Amino acid sequence: MNIILLSGGSGKRLWPLSNDIRSKQFIKIFKGENGEYESMVQRVYRQIQNVVPEASVTIATSRSQVSAIRNQLGEKVHICVEPCRRDTFPAIALAAAYLRDVKGALQEEPAVVCPVDPYVDQVYFQAAARLCTLIKPGETNLALIGIEPTYPSEKYGYIMPGTQEPVSVVKAFKEKPDQKTAEQYIREGALWNGGVFAFQLGYILEKTRELTGFSTYEDLLANYESLTKISFDYAVAEKEKQIQVLRYQGQWKDLGTWNTLTEAMDEQAVGKALYNETCENIHIVNELNVPIVCMGLKNTVVAASAEGILVSDKEQSSYIKPYVDQIHQQVMFAEKSWGSFQVMDVEETSMTIKITLNPGHGMNYHSHTYRDEVWTIVSGKGKTIVDGMEQPVQPGDVITIEAGCRHTILAETELKVVEVQLGREISVHDKKKYKLDS
Amino acid sequence: MNIILLSGGSGKRLWPLSNDIRSKQFIKIFKGENGEYESMVQRVYRQIQNVVPEASVTIATSRSQVSAIRNQLGEKVHICVEPCRRDTFPAIALAAAYLRDVKGALQEEPAVVCPVDPYVDQVYFQAAARLCTLIKPGETNLALIGIEPTYPSEKYGYIMPGTQEPVSVVKAFKEKPDQKTAEQYIREGALWNGGVFAFQLGYILEKTRELTGFSTYEDLLANYESLTKISFDYAVAEKEKQIQVLRYQGQWKDLGTWNTLTEAMDEQAVGKALYNETCENIHIVNELNVPIVCMGLKNTVVAASAEGILVSDKEQSSYIKPYVDQIHQQVMFAEKSWGSFQVMDVEETSMTIKITLNPGHGMNYHSHTYRDEVWTIVSGKGKTIVDGMEQPVQPGDVITIEAGCRHTILAETELKVVEVQLGREISVHDKKKYKLDS
Repeated sequence: MNIILLSGGSGKRLWPLSNDIRSKQFIKIFKGENGEYESMVQRVYRQIQNVVPEASVTIATSRSQVSAIRNQLGEKVHICVEPCRRDTFPAIALAAAYLRDVKGALQEEPAVVCPVDPYVDQVYFQAAARLCTLIKPGETNLALIGIEPTYPSEKYGYIMPGTQEPVSVVKAFKEKPDQKTAEQYIREGALWNGGVFAFQLGYILEKTRELTGFSTYEDLLANYESLTKISFDYAVAEKEKQIQVLRYQGQWKDLGTWNTLTEAMDEQAVGKALYNETCENIHIVNELNVPIVCMGLKNTVVAASAEGILVSDKEQSSYIKPYVDQIHQQVMFAEKSWGSFQVMDVEETSMTIKITLNPGHGMNYHSHTYRDEVWTIVSGKGKTIVDGMEQPVQPGDVITIEAGCRHTILAETELKVVEVQLGREISVHDKKKYKLDS
Repeated sequence: MNIILLSGGSGKRLWPLSNDIRSKQFIKIFKGENGEYESMVQRVYRQIQNVVPEASVTIATSRSQVSAIRNQLGEKVHICVEPCRRDTFPAIALAAAYLRDVKGALQEEPAVVCPVDPYVDQVYFQAAARLCTLIKPGETNLALIGIEPTYPSEKYGYIMPGTQEPVSVVKAFKEKPDQKTAEQYIREGALWNGGVFAFQLGYILEKTRELTGFSTYEDLLANYESLTKISFDYAVAEKEKQIQVLRYQGQWKDLGTWNTLTEAMDEQAVGKALYNETCENIHIVNELNVPIVCMGLKNTVVAASAEGILVSDKEQSSYIKPYVDQIHQQVMFAEKSWGSFQVMDVEETSMTIKITLNPGHGMNYHSHTYRDEVWTIVSGKGKTIVDGMEQPVQPGDVITIEAGCRHTILAETELKVVEVQLGREISVHDKKKYKLDS
């Protein structure tokens, strides 16, 4: 069985922990089975492994998330990279073609598509796996999960089932309604559409050919930018007559705002935090290395990272976007394919960052036109290459790199480096990449 | 005229902006005359200069505050350093002896003693200066300010004046009362004791001889640790019969907690901050380089520094001490005689700090036994001395200092340095100082 996880775009709704380059699904705030914190994507992957260990998992995402996915899930998952964002139908089509044309999956194999960030019980993935067993070409081309609504939400699309049975034909799909209409839908037995679909790969690839004119991975990839932005619901699900819905009654939460996210937290505080007994219904998420002290707060979320600090009434936290959109600062923290970096200090003509390289990884071989750099190795072992000259490095070693000089550093063990950048025009865009002859 | 400002100890009531080594009087949060932020001590000194420009100002304080005073007030003030804390009477006695024996003041000169941290109008210092004109030996030995109470406070001592005149004899001193007693005092016309006293130097030095057996600066300094801890009120004021009180009706605030401090702030936010219109009665003080975003908060103070983050209901903020006492971390930021430093990163076997040296200043010539250091100059000009060898330095220069190596850096212009410390036992105590032969 193939599981395709759709890993959506970045956003600022969970600022300062999510930002232009870090998406919410990578924030580690849930207690995992071993007591360590895990992110949404780690939690979902762990749950899938527990329920359907034999499943082949593919994550459909953009280039910017590849590093974070590899850092958090390692090499165990396939990653299908969308050249640009084109909504869910093209993303699913590309992933299906990738599975067949790159990974050698058969046309007849079932696949289930699922968002990467629902907060659910494991039984949810049992239901998702069961969807695949419902698929019978010509009879049931598409199967999807219908979530029993817990309140008349305006945030979700609704599915009208034909019967009250656990598995039912679908009578109709309904777009996100206003609250009154939602109440009416629920009285009529409607279910939430959680975006979980099962199909045979061949079915979706045929639809893809019909709708786009392309059906191979190579063609889709090459023409991806020209594809129309359209959701899977509009393009496929709402037009399919041979479609069944499976009822799901367990836990299902969409953790898109601080308000909903903190509801799912196992603890009141993650990271260094102190709060007194006069605090009620507060949550603290602290990624900094210094403590947060809270006193006399009610219904408040406090979140701190290298990007900034949010202190918000929980309900108000849903309206954060326009405020954080006003913040224009450089990215202070990022996970990269080779590790991570954090900005420690910014001056007019210098910037100091801390670089962590994962074992076996290295930077690109590159040079800068407008800045010099000084590296001080603070821990780990590896080697540097500066203008072609290789040198082993260890803690205490200092490497000075003048502007124009080609350089890289490769980690043998986890390697930490303090990098001081010096120049009048320090910019992430001042970078030329080269091939390494080795 | 001599003004002795008593600069009290450090404390955590305004954590994270005050801590073990930074006292509240040095936090820059008030808008000064030129629009720049100033600290309490800078504000008080500016007000004194406006009202009594001819006054000679001496600050009685401990060694730990000397650097901050010099950084904020320069060389314009005298500093009388108490070898240890011994309450206000020994501090005032030492300062009086310092003025006579070190600064050559005459026994007959008047002096006025004043806490360094009241938040007042300038007229307050007019009243303080006027106190000196009331002193007539044998007739009025002591004069003090009585503040018209605005509410029945339990935090202050009370003075019972003999009359309702602007200047009156003192009938009695009363200790901090409970609220009911305070109400009774106020009905009887009592005034708050703000700790502002005037006297002739000779008067206080005679009292000092009587009470301690010492009266010269040298003797007091040498025996300071053996002196009894006693307040000036108990030791002198309450026993003096020839004493007058001058009424003061202007602004007078004791900014000892976040609640009272924020009341005196000219702006809702100091530093990088954003807040929406759903916030009410909030104050933000942000010393960090990343923004604080506040939404839907009421009656809340948010304060952030390199030491940590406080988010507190304003009233609750008075109870902060036991909570921050639980925090045991190294000092993350400090002002020193030569400039300042800030910890940027702490790892198991390394620590990265940023050092700012003031023009014309340098570190002590010193060595470390258990750590190597790497300096990268990021801005400014100066010179380093490493094992006796002098070398001019400029941005981009790197100096590596092995354990045992004697070293210092001297700033010609303001000089900023990123220092990476490397070793298994990094401690502020690992430091040997040497004399520089120059």
